[in-house]
Amino acid sequence: MNEPVAEPECRFETVAVVGVGLIGGSIAAALHARRLCHRVIGVGRSAEKLRPALDSGLIDAVATDVTLAAAESDLLIFCTPVDRIVAGVCAASERCRPKTLITDAGSVKRDICEALDEGLPGGVTFVGSHPLAGSEKTGFEHADADLFEGRVCVVTPTDNSASESVARIGGFWQSLGMTVIETSPAEHDRLLAIASHVPHVVAPALAAILDEETAPFAASGFRDSTRIAAGDPALWAAIFEANRVAVEAGLERFTQSLEQFREAVSAGNWGRLQNLLETAKRNRDAL
Amino acid sequence: MNEPVAEPECRFETVAVVGVGLIGGSIAAALHARRLCHRVIGVGRSAEKLRPALDSGLIDAVATDVTLAAAESDLLIFCTPVDRIVAGVCAASERCRPKTLITDAGSVKRDICEALDEGLPGGVTFVGSHPLAGSEKTGFEHADADLFEGRVCVVTPTDNSASESVARIGGFWQSLGMTVIETSPAEHDRLLAIASHVPHVVAPALAAILDEETAPFAASGFRDSTRIAAGDPALWAAIFEANRVAVEAGLERFTQSLEQFREAVSAGNWGRLQNLLETAKRNRDAL
Repeated sequence: MNEPVAEPECRFETVAVVGVGLIGGSIAAALHARRLCHRVIGVGRSAEKLRPALDSGLIDAVATDVTLAAAESDLLIFCTPVDRIVAGVCAASERCRPKTLITDAGSVKRDICEALDEGLPGGVTFVGSHPLAGSEKTGFEHADADLFEGRVCVVTPTDNSASESVARIGGFWQSLGMTVIETSPAEHDRLLAIASHVPHVVAPALAAILDEETAPFAASGFRDSTRIAAGDPALWAAIFEANRVAVEAGLERFTQSLEQFREAVSAGNWGRLQNLLETAKRNRDAL
Repeated sequence: MNEPVAEPECRFETVAVVGVGLIGGSIAAALHARRLCHRVIGVGRSAEKLRPALDSGLIDAVATDVTLAAAESDLLIFCTPVDRIVAGVCAASERCRPKTLITDAGSVKRDICEALDEGLPGGVTFVGSHPLAGSEKTGFEHADADLFEGRVCVVTPTDNSASESVARIGGFWQSLGMTVIETSPAEHDRLLAIASHVPHVVAPALAAILDEETAPFAASGFRDSTRIAAGDPALWAAIFEANRVAVEAGLERFTQSLEQFREAVSAGNWGRLQNLLETAKRNRDAL
């Protein structure tokens, strides 16, 4: 028995995964495990790095140039660093057949969706996505078919997006086990600045105060609080660049929050401090 | 075969665990699993709350007054909130037999060790400890015999501590699988302000900026970064109170670190930002 497990609207004949790292590799693994398409093409800049993906059997073919995959694919998913997505989509779309869908997995959306909102060749559609799944780990070797299971994917249509395309992209992520939330690209960037980008500044700022003397005393609390500081610096610098205004606003909001705690400590106002800790605990417990 | 697994110097006839929550319960569980003593007495303020510990079989007897356990025990370990340790030790020591050892598991050491450095009845010795193990979870129901395995315990003798007592307390924690580091009480507080107390302010300050609108977008990065914000507010307020000066200095150090990141974002200096992220990643990866 080789019955497809997904809804018919989620099925694609050939899917190209552009950027076969943790996210791209996990998409390939999930497509394979759930038998959601007949062929997965992996696209990457280095043939050397694509080999493990091909050898794993999760990818059926590889290409070092996205244009080679474009004409063969019904769906392309760009999982490259955010500063390479727009150029990649533009290059691919020139070779795509009409009705080809393109999406991405980038952590910022406004710049990307604005740049791609018009101007793609006739019949080729881009709808932005951001699957809220990942890890500080990078690379295909950590690919995990269950990475998306039970997580949220934000899909970010614009006023120009065809509702049928938006539904198909949403259905694709649902077929990987995700819950889909739709927002505008700008709204996504504003909300994710708080929920993701600010923590990715705070955790490194915290990791940076540890030195040779204090490191032996860092236990699980410090480790967990700074786990995401192990992320890829270039990747995150590009995300902060693309969401600068919202990240600045988010950092100001965090600084004001921290200042409340500092003031309570400095004033020796332990009742006030306990209230602040209780509010924070309620927020955290609600997650 | 019922061979003891620990070194002879680590063995005690009767151990009293004062405060049978996560830490006290885990000590009882580890003593039981490793057969390190013949009897464990659990001490708590509420008979009701002690019942699960007794029913579990990890505790052989319970008492709601530490003085009842004091005369029966060779070793007492205070696992109460830090603001109740000194009074508890003083009360217990009045009833202890000579050569009784007392230690604690408090997250601050200077105030406690100074208060107890002299003045205990003849032959009763207090040496401070801080096992760097724990969780945001509280309560006996989360007790775990392996909580201490492979972790660090800081033992904080003073100039007046007898080296034999310090060695026996160190040996006790080693028998639970811990690596022991000795520091002075003041040094402990200065180092732990950075490695533990500051993260316990930063994580709540971060958790506090999440609201109803942004919470659905908080994924594993936000969750991990704020896990310790779920800790007990009263317990942590007391720790900050007892280590106020070092915590203030640590928060200033963190604020300066954060300011470097903020300045790089505001200036659009992405190369500088990437350098800061790389330094932080090296620190984190080294843990």
